Amino acid sequence: MKITTDNIDDFATGATVLGTGGGGDPYIGKLMAQQAIEEHGPVDLIDPRDVPDDALVIPSAMLGAPTVMVEKMPKGTEARSAFEALETHLGQEAYATMSIEAGGLNSTVPIAVAAALGLPLVDADGMGRAFPEVQMVTLTMGGVSATPMSIADEKGNSLLVNTVSNEYAEAFARVTSIEMGGACMIGTYALSGAEVREHAILDSMSLAHDIGEAIRTAKHRSRDPVEAVLDLTDGYELFAGKLTDVERRTEGGFAVGEATLDGIDDCEGRTFTLDFQNENLVARDSERGVVASTPDLITVVDAETGDPVTTERLAYGHRVRVIGMPCSPKWRTDEGLDLVGPGYFDYSIDYEPIETLQQPKHD
Amino acid sequence: MKITTDNIDDFATGATVLGTGGGGDPYIGKLMAQQAIEEHGPVDLIDPRDVPDDALVIPSAMLGAPTVMVEKMPKGTEARSAFEALETHLGQEAYATMSIEAGGLNSTVPIAVAAALGLPLVDADGMGRAFPEVQMVTLTMGGVSATPMSIADEKGNSLLVNTVSNEYAEAFARVTSIEMGGACMIGTYALSGAEVREHAILDSMSLAHDIGEAIRTAKHRSRDPVEAVLDLTDGYELFAGKLTDVERRTEGGFAVGEATLDGIDDCEGRTFTLDFQNENLVARDSERGVVASTPDLITVVDAETGDPVTTERLAYGHRVRVIGMPCSPKWRTDEGLDLVGPGYFDYSIDYEPIETLQQPKHD
Repeated sequence: MKITTDNIDDFATGATVLGTGGGGDPYIGKLMAQQAIEEHGPVDLIDPRDVPDDALVIPSAMLGAPTVMVEKMPKGTEARSAFEALETHLGQEAYATMSIEAGGLNSTVPIAVAAALGLPLVDADGMGRAFPEVQMVTLTMGGVSATPMSIADEKGNSLLVNTVSNEYAEAFARVTSIEMGGACMIGTYALSGAEVREHAILDSMSLAHDIGEAIRTAKHRSRDPVEAVLDLTDGYELFAGKLTDVERRTEGGFAVGEATLDGIDDCEGRTFTLDFQNENLVARDSERGVVASTPDLITVVDAETGDPVTTERLAYGHRVRVIGMPCSPKWRTDEGLDLVGPGYFDYSIDYEPIETLQQPKHD
Repeated sequence: MKITTDNIDDFATGATVLGTGGGGDPYIGKLMAQQAIEEHGPVDLIDPRDVPDDALVIPSAMLGAPTVMVEKMPKGTEARSAFEALETHLGQEAYATMSIEAGGLNSTVPIAVAAALGLPLVDADGMGRAFPEVQMVTLTMGGVSATPMSIADEKGNSLLVNTVSNEYAEAFARVTSIEMGGACMIGTYALSGAEVREHAILDSMSLAHDIGEAIRTAKHRSRDPVEAVLDLTDGYELFAGKLTDVERRTEGGFAVGEATLDGIDDCEGRTFTLDFQNENLVARDSERGVVASTPDLITVVDAETGDPVTTERLAYGHRVRVIGMPCSPKWRTDEGLDLVGPGYFDYSIDYEPIETLQQPKHD
């Protein structure tokens, strides 16, 4: 499959659904990819099963505060510089690039990098959704190191980082991104084709495309767009409501907040709250308690069009529906829950898979 | 000349005089160098005029908060790692190491590195005194880049940094040192023998040794130790007094404060204030106004023994004398004063050389 200016919208929309409210502004990521494709031509999206075992795949990403990333669109030189610095350091030419997250900005940024470098993009990512920190990828559990990591900005500054843990890679990259003006480009988690197949989340880019396409075409097909998304993701509609309150504050670089919904249609009489820290993390129903929590995916979409609404865009009065989708089984292990479970984000709730929470309770 | 366990004390004392109140705890630096010399043998201090033009000199330094550096004495592995990372990156074996500052901790840390690596130490440095930030070296004015800079900690983390300015090198190194626990080892300002001769401050290590020796032996030679130091440094005794007040606070990582002295002996009836930000920066006499300011050197010594007193050790009731010493002419250029003059530290005074300030004023 080719990623072109005709289908880039679908990738961006679908990635925003998988971004669970975070992952940065989808519009800016789409714009970057679109410009790069116009200039350099379409990008080949390749099946991870077709990547040779020992081929080098170098994921690329933008790191920083989402609000800054929007204003500081990469010039392209820094993405290229970060990518090529890793190639040089590793002494091996890259076979392809890849997305680190299947959500928002960082699922489209690598499309721009792929176009600019004339490389294919592997149909896979490191999360199957969006998460805010470098170490929060299934690759960490597979023992893939985030380093050597290259970091570059648009001014010509660059760093090559080697760390004893992926958490240290996050720490150094985070403070560097701040000194670079709030955002930077990174090359990280360089891995082999065999490692992609074993430790990454496969087929997530084409899933993003299919979700975006389903939402866009639902109207013409007289289909409910939410139903179409649920079919593709094995998801659940958790709630339908009107936003009555959104509280937001910035804590430690995260956009932290809570949204409250008053039920409409079948949900009339119930209320619903969404806790978010960049991404939506915990969803609670006034009658049923916790109905979904990280690492499962929680996404707010427009009640009519099915278009995803990021946490930054949640606004009073908006009629929305909330979707819950199961995360990759890789995240549901003890190690996975240590990395991205409710406890990591300081919620004192035990994770239960969304499928379990959806079953009627027998007391 | 050889640096041995017998004369390391003199180097440390003299470096603390040149450290103008800052540069870290001289005791810890001495201890590190002493241990390294005991383990690996004495270090050759070589004349910068004897270094071949194209020989590679890699200065080593510890970077971080002085208080942390005291508690976090390098294990040696990180110093070695930072040094060797630069050698590898530059593809050239180092001929020698060098001190970045002639003051406090960072004039003795490279002695330890030299001992551990079996390399000579060049009798030169990048400041001729102590200053708090990476870009504050005469090498910056000579166009020598602080990068490639290697940064390493005792855990095994390392970074290789390339920047478009020495100020960016400072910024990235500073935040990295914080993430590394408050202090780290760096290899920086790799330069050729020819560049050392043209842009560094020459003979400053042997000057430190001579100052330390003069202070130690003054008593036996029935000589005033302060007079001996003034002879070696073309300095002036600015004041003799008793410390009546010391105010300290931490601002942006600096130990900022003010010390007040009441005159004794010839200075009876006058008061004196010292403004410091890690280093002593401005000295004012109640009768004569500003008598010395950065980049000239201002050092407080014990009134009897001549032993230097760092700003951290300034204590109520201590009878001290204050010495002013002219800085290198390199610092007195417009470019030098932009880097380290009073204005950089937010003082709204115009720099005047200490020699000028010492002349009687004709109004």
